Amino acid sequence: MIKTVLFDMNETLLNLSLLKENFDKHFEDPTIPKYWFAKVLHYSTVMGAMDEYTDFGKLSEAALESLFLENEKELTDETKKDILGSFKRLPAYNDVSEALKLLRENNIKVIAVTNSSYEMVKEQLTNSKLINLFDSYYSVDAVQKYKPFKDIYQYVLKQEKVNADETVMVATHDWDLIGAKKVGLVTAYINRKKDQYNPYYLNPDISSTNLLDVVEEIIKLN
Amino acid sequence: MIKTVLFDMNETLLNLSLLKENFDKHFEDPTIPKYWFAKVLHYSTVMGAMDEYTDFGKLSEAALESLFLENEKELTDETKKDILGSFKRLPAYNDVSEALKLLRENNIKVIAVTNSSYEMVKEQLTNSKLINLFDSYYSVDAVQKYKPFKDIYQYVLKQEKVNADETVMVATHDWDLIGAKKVGLVTAYINRKKDQYNPYYLNPDISSTNLLDVVEEIIKLN
Repeated sequence: MIKTVLFDMNETLLNLSLLKENFDKHFEDPTIPKYWFAKVLHYSTVMGAMDEYTDFGKLSEAALESLFLENEKELTDETKKDILGSFKRLPAYNDVSEALKLLRENNIKVIAVTNSSYEMVKEQLTNSKLINLFDSYYSVDAVQKYKPFKDIYQYVLKQEKVNADETVMVATHDWDLIGAKKVGLVTAYINRKKDQYNPYYLNPDISSTNLLDVVEEIIKLN
Repeated sequence: MIKTVLFDMNETLLNLSLLKENFDKHFEDPTIPKYWFAKVLHYSTVMGAMDEYTDFGKLSEAALESLFLENEKELTDETKKDILGSFKRLPAYNDVSEALKLLRENNIKVIAVTNSSYEMVKEQLTNSKLINLFDSYYSVDAVQKYKPFKDIYQYVLKQEKVNADETVMVATHDWDLIGAKKVGLVTAYINRKKDQYNPYYLNPDISSTNLLDVVEEIIKLN
């Protein structure tokens, strides 16, 4: 019996196109924002492995500094603010609102779980007009350890008083889903772009390119 | 008293230019090989965090498949072999041979420690004509956990019967050095390209853009 669905935010529910547009002002290279994000993810996972923690926004900033330095471009405070600030104003994908409503109509709780700070997720949910569709939202700030380390998934289960097998994690990132799967959650992969699910990670239980399909599959489990 | 110096291989001692040339045959974008390598590093660190392990070569292959798919390019077996095979034939940087000889003249052991397989590092050392300058070489295969997790550094110390504070880790990767530092090794950063050392990682004890300078600093510690 699925009682709760956890959603990743960036790229899963929120479209990164605005962020990409801000990179495009400085680089004529579509690989740049992907390279930057891969760096941020590597930073955060290394920090977790080393039992270190700092705000995800600070890691994003450090990766941005590194990126501009590598490419011998000046990074002004204004550019930094422009690029990193766009995270707060990311729009939701078109399929999000209807999918979340359908879960709620089926008495399933809707919860956000993010590597970003608590302030960031609150602002993202407000600006994307999704906040009223969420029962709750969590940041890894609470456990000082990023996804996909087990801490945040277990913390949310405990706070929500729900079992792992009654809970689905939805994400467009294979690394997020292997973390959730490792602690026993049901996992659902929403494929937002042409990409290969890492064949060495645990496979998701549900997989689709449309969030409404994902949610319908979840409801069918009950 | 420094008795042993551990060296990372790829990018630290071996020049990746050949690998980049092979990417350039398929992509007109210098960010592509960097993006690919960032993906490989993220994969390996996530695997470590999840207590999973597979050969680094297989993760490199999976990241290559993902890269070609994302860019809607066909990845033939020949291209795969071309790109991944170039790892075996990477040449050493110009400053390597003299630096390693200087360590040996000062009775300091020279050891390779790599995320690649044992077969790969052996082949790399042979092809780059460095093998006779090494006392020993280790792959994370031995502990089934990638750098920067503590396992391999501790394993090498134990096998070599040397203390952490008598041992230096030399790498061009900040994430490798934070791992070594966490288990008490002395760390030396060789800066091979325009790049920012992650400000949230533990700082290296020694830092230079030339390996001979790094080695001279190490010898001065004795």
